[in-house]
Amino acid sequence: MKNNLIITIEREFGSGGHVIGEKLAEALGVPFYDEAIIERAAMKSGFDKEFIEEQEQKINNSLLFNIATNGYYTGGSLHDQIFIAERDTLIEVAQQGACVIVGRCADYILREGYNCLNVFVHAEKEDRIKRVVEEYGVKGNNISSIIDKTDKQRARHYQYYSDQVWGASENYHLTLNTSRFSIEQAVGILKDVAELF
Amino acid sequence: MKNNLIITIEREFGSGGHVIGEKLAEALGVPFYDEAIIERAAMKSGFDKEFIEEQEQKINNSLLFNIATNGYYTGGSLHDQIFIAERDTLIEVAQQGACVIVGRCADYILREGYNCLNVFVHAEKEDRIKRVVEEYGVKGNNISSIIDKTDKQRARHYQYYSDQVWGASENYHLTLNTSRFSIEQAVGILKDVAELF
Repeated sequence: MKNNLIITIEREFGSGGHVIGEKLAEALGVPFYDEAIIERAAMKSGFDKEFIEEQEQKINNSLLFNIATNGYYTGGSLHDQIFIAERDTLIEVAQQGACVIVGRCADYILREGYNCLNVFVHAEKEDRIKRVVEEYGVKGNNISSIIDKTDKQRARHYQYYSDQVWGASENYHLTLNTSRFSIEQAVGILKDVAELF
Repeated sequence: MKNNLIITIEREFGSGGHVIGEKLAEALGVPFYDEAIIERAAMKSGFDKEFIEEQEQKINNSLLFNIATNGYYTGGSLHDQIFIAERDTLIEVAQQGACVIVGRCADYILREGYNCLNVFVHAEKEDRIKRVVEEYGVKGNNISSIIDKTDKQRARHYQYYSDQVWGASENYHLTLNTSRFSIEQAVGILKDVAELF
């Protein structure tokens, strides 16, 4: 594995993608960043008035240019400003070297200039329901619709900023259905693939 | 690896999926079946008048019932008859034990009652053009459109009979972008995954 390899993981809710990312980072001895960590860092370091004004002046940078030409830029909404703060945080951690990042369109944001192994993790619905109840401790009789809603939000966020389809194999170097593997086996597969990058 | 494991591979044209399947079968010591083999066997064993009449009497079997209820069955066209003959050949080889099958909707046809590892192999367009020219010896200045046309045919055939999207990660246990791997590496990854099944 090269020193600068960044493994990005997008995942269906309940597929085990988060814990796989966590254990993979541990196995490889590299930092792990998930959505909560990226969000907190972005809020802390960049999400203030001065920062946002500065970002708005960079309106002609490549990402915003892409968003604008694709018709997606909505004039600096709060959502876009959060995305910008998170994007900058992602780039900052990526520049520090090898790591595992879960979620936040990392595969798209780091698509140029970084050595990325992009992974999508999914599973059968019944196994995701089981994991959400047993591992995440979610209660209620609407688990299936909670899963659907979460995945819809993830898909919408990904498509909005990347103009790509979330979960389409063409966007990832590898996709994995975890219904047929244990968490440890999935980590092993990804670790072996990472060694080839 | 269990004795009865059947590895199905769908692949983009020029992605190396065929040769990966061939070498994987060799590495695992199991038979290899590609589209040409299945087609020849279907033509030889089943594609005669008596066979087709017999198949038509099985109109209420599950596959045709599915096709009919999905509105796809077109009343026994030549295309459907070929599909039926190929499907029966596929089932026949699958019943003989572990093997690798490339193409022909094998993942869908064998979805119930068989232990399948379903794989989709794809690659960046530029790498596929290179392989089609250098490895397959295709000449001309329209290689890109030949690739697109071949993939469109494969996608249409798959979608018509399975009512699923060709290349959507949800239909496969694993998808792999071969642009970042050598053929040998891809075979190694799939062999390791097969050992877990």
